[in-house]
Amino acid sequence: MVVAVPVGVATPSLVLDLDVVERNIDRMAQAAAAGGFTLRPHAKTHKCPQLAALQLRAGAVGLTVATIGEAEVFADAGFDDLFIAYPLWLDGDRVGRLRRLAERARVAVGVDSVAAGQRLAEVMAPVDLALLAGATGAIGRAPAAGRDRSAVRPVEATIIEVMIEVDSGHRRSGVSPADAPGLAVALAGLGLRVRGLFTFPGHSYDPGAADRAAREEEDALARAAAAVRAAGVPVTVLSGGSTPSAAHVRSGGPVGELRPGVYVFNDAQQLALGSCTEAQIALAAATTVVSAPASDRFVLDAGSKALGADRPAWTPGFGHLPHWPGALVSSLSEHHAVVTVPPGTELPRIGSTTLVVPNHVCSAVNLADELVVTRGGAVIDRWPVAARGAHR
Amino acid sequence: MVVAVPVGVATPSLVLDLDVVERNIDRMAQAAAAGGFTLRPHAKTHKCPQLAALQLRAGAVGLTVATIGEAEVFADAGFDDLFIAYPLWLDGDRVGRLRRLAERARVAVGVDSVAAGQRLAEVMAPVDLALLAGATGAIGRAPAAGRDRSAVRPVEATIIEVMIEVDSGHRRSGVSPADAPGLAVALAGLGLRVRGLFTFPGHSYDPGAADRAAREEEDALARAAAAVRAAGVPVTVLSGGSTPSAAHVRSGGPVGELRPGVYVFNDAQQLALGSCTEAQIALAAATTVVSAPASDRFVLDAGSKALGADRPAWTPGFGHLPHWPGALVSSLSEHHAVVTVPPGTELPRIGSTTLVVPNHVCSAVNLADELVVTRGGAVIDRWPVAARGAHR
Repeated sequence: MVVAVPVGVATPSLVLDLDVVERNIDRMAQAAAAGGFTLRPHAKTHKCPQLAALQLRAGAVGLTVATIGEAEVFADAGFDDLFIAYPLWLDGDRVGRLRRLAERARVAVGVDSVAAGQRLAEVMAPVDLALLAGATGAIGRAPAAGRDRSAVRPVEATIIEVMIEVDSGHRRSGVSPADAPGLAVALAGLGLRVRGLFTFPGHSYDPGAADRAAREEEDALARAAAAVRAAGVPVTVLSGGSTPSAAHVRSGGPVGELRPGVYVFNDAQQLALGSCTEAQIALAAATTVVSAPASDRFVLDAGSKALGADRPAWTPGFGHLPHWPGALVSSLSEHHAVVTVPPGTELPRIGSTTLVVPNHVCSAVNLADELVVTRGGAVIDRWPVAARGAHR
Repeated sequence: MVVAVPVGVATPSLVLDLDVVERNIDRMAQAAAAGGFTLRPHAKTHKCPQLAALQLRAGAVGLTVATIGEAEVFADAGFDDLFIAYPLWLDGDRVGRLRRLAERARVAVGVDSVAAGQRLAEVMAPVDLALLAGATGAIGRAPAAGRDRSAVRPVEATIIEVMIEVDSGHRRSGVSPADAPGLAVALAGLGLRVRGLFTFPGHSYDPGAADRAAREEEDALARAAAAVRAAGVPVTVLSGGSTPSAAHVRSGGPVGELRPGVYVFNDAQQLALGSCTEAQIALAAATTVVSAPASDRFVLDAGSKALGADRPAWTPGFGHLPHWPGALVSSLSEHHAVVTVPPGTELPRIGSTTLVVPNHVCSAVNLADELVVTRGGAVIDRWPVAARGAHR
């Protein structure tokens, strides 16, 4: 836990305790190894190559990212095994960007529709031929889906593997397990290399739901994989996992890869869910008390533009106050956190500092330009949030 | 209203319709002029000098900002009358930054405590003398509050005016009207120039509450001003106003200055509150349909990292879908907007584009690096969100 706002740190800032970060990273790595899982942490949480490096050093096989833009930042930093766990639609500059990415990293992308698979097959493989066709008029443009592409396959096609997204109960993107084999056959027929299946058990983000979500995740992946294999498409990687559900996934079961993200820092949501302790929270916003206008409240200089506005109904407020156990972040404006206190509470001095643990650390980090790195309460470094805003 | 996602615009992006922006700016400017109000729009909404310039051209007397960082961006762009409507606590580099700001712009800052006023008086006026004292040993450091400062007042003191923040019912920062005269006398005694009083009627952000909030705003400012003047502190400017309440403030009443922000773009919140029409919404997120995995929903590539996670209980979802009247943005992940549709709805083609109006446009703009500027559906420019992330 970050113990206090370090002297000299301007507020609002995001401060991390590197000792806690390292323990969090090691704990997850050891649990994954003990369970026989490979670990591919989601880097959208920290967006920071220094933290990804710690994850890989602890045994992660590669990184998960959400966008081509995030993948580019980590490829630029030398990370060469990237899974874009998102149903990309390749248009505009995304085509060229993904091709360039695949030239310097092993890349897999999420797919949950034949349409996106066709797009991927068209834009990835035959561009060289299309250019050639433009020069000679002999071949024409990229073949439409369903036609035999073997004749026009370039020898040096860009290799992008696909991971089929399966819905395990979150009801977001991802096909149902029953629809997975049809999609897998279609994708294979397009010449795409299907590495495996993935799911995001986002419904593990409900109090008490993590174990059930892990069971549904296992079930969905197992059913989908069996059907896909029975349809003649070999898949090797079955990927799941989130920070709340990771500890609930069974060793020796169908899930082989875990993709948790938040665990590196944890946050007020994870604390409320019981998936971390307060001592395992590695990041907090450093804030200053700017107002204490009435006996029932004081105001901190971190609002939704620093903490993020995320607030699930089951979190007690808009952030966690480690040094004000009876108080509540009852509302956020853009630059104000209103902290309501029980009657009789002595209000803090205006100008004093305190910490707020964001509800959802991924949102908070994406609002910051840098992370203040501390050990033992002392600032030892500042790391840019290199992939901040890389949402394309 | 932005009519469609312009061809060639990468998603997610924020697209504004400059014709609608100009009409919004003109409408507010004309209403303010007709009511005898001066207009000092809050630039935290757009964070963009090009839009501030349109506001000043339409008659605004200056800008409101939330942070020293925002003020610096607008001062750099040549804006020379800035009100930082926030109870600043001046520590660290804020002292020097505010002094430098005051050298190139007329600056006022919000104050709601004697402590912050003391800080302001100490760090603003006597620094030159403190330096001098360091050299000569004759004067000592800045005088403590309450002592007679006239003897040590430097001739060329940095001039920063203060605006006393009054709470008119939002229960955030700001003193009660009853506490205003005591604060005003203390600030004047510190040698600070009290320009006036301000309030933010944030409780106007509730359905049907705008008129009542405007009455409470008028009442709070009138009571506070009368008491402050009776205590011997002359105040000239009484500043209020928000986008929902601005039209409800009475001409000829106590309020003299309005500080709305959101009106330049409007958003899904304002639409739900009835403070704008759909035709007056000037900004939307351009998004792509990336998934349509089941008959009840489709997924867009704009999540909370593009739209912001703001969701008051009275908004119908996490954004407004102008082209999908029966549909609902039922949840946001960081890069997914899940749109649920009524039974029997024909789902959009994957790869097609649509618009989402953010719930709270200030949050969405702060997540973007640039705004795509259109007229008549065509892209005519791209404006950097110059003050994005300037939250210190």
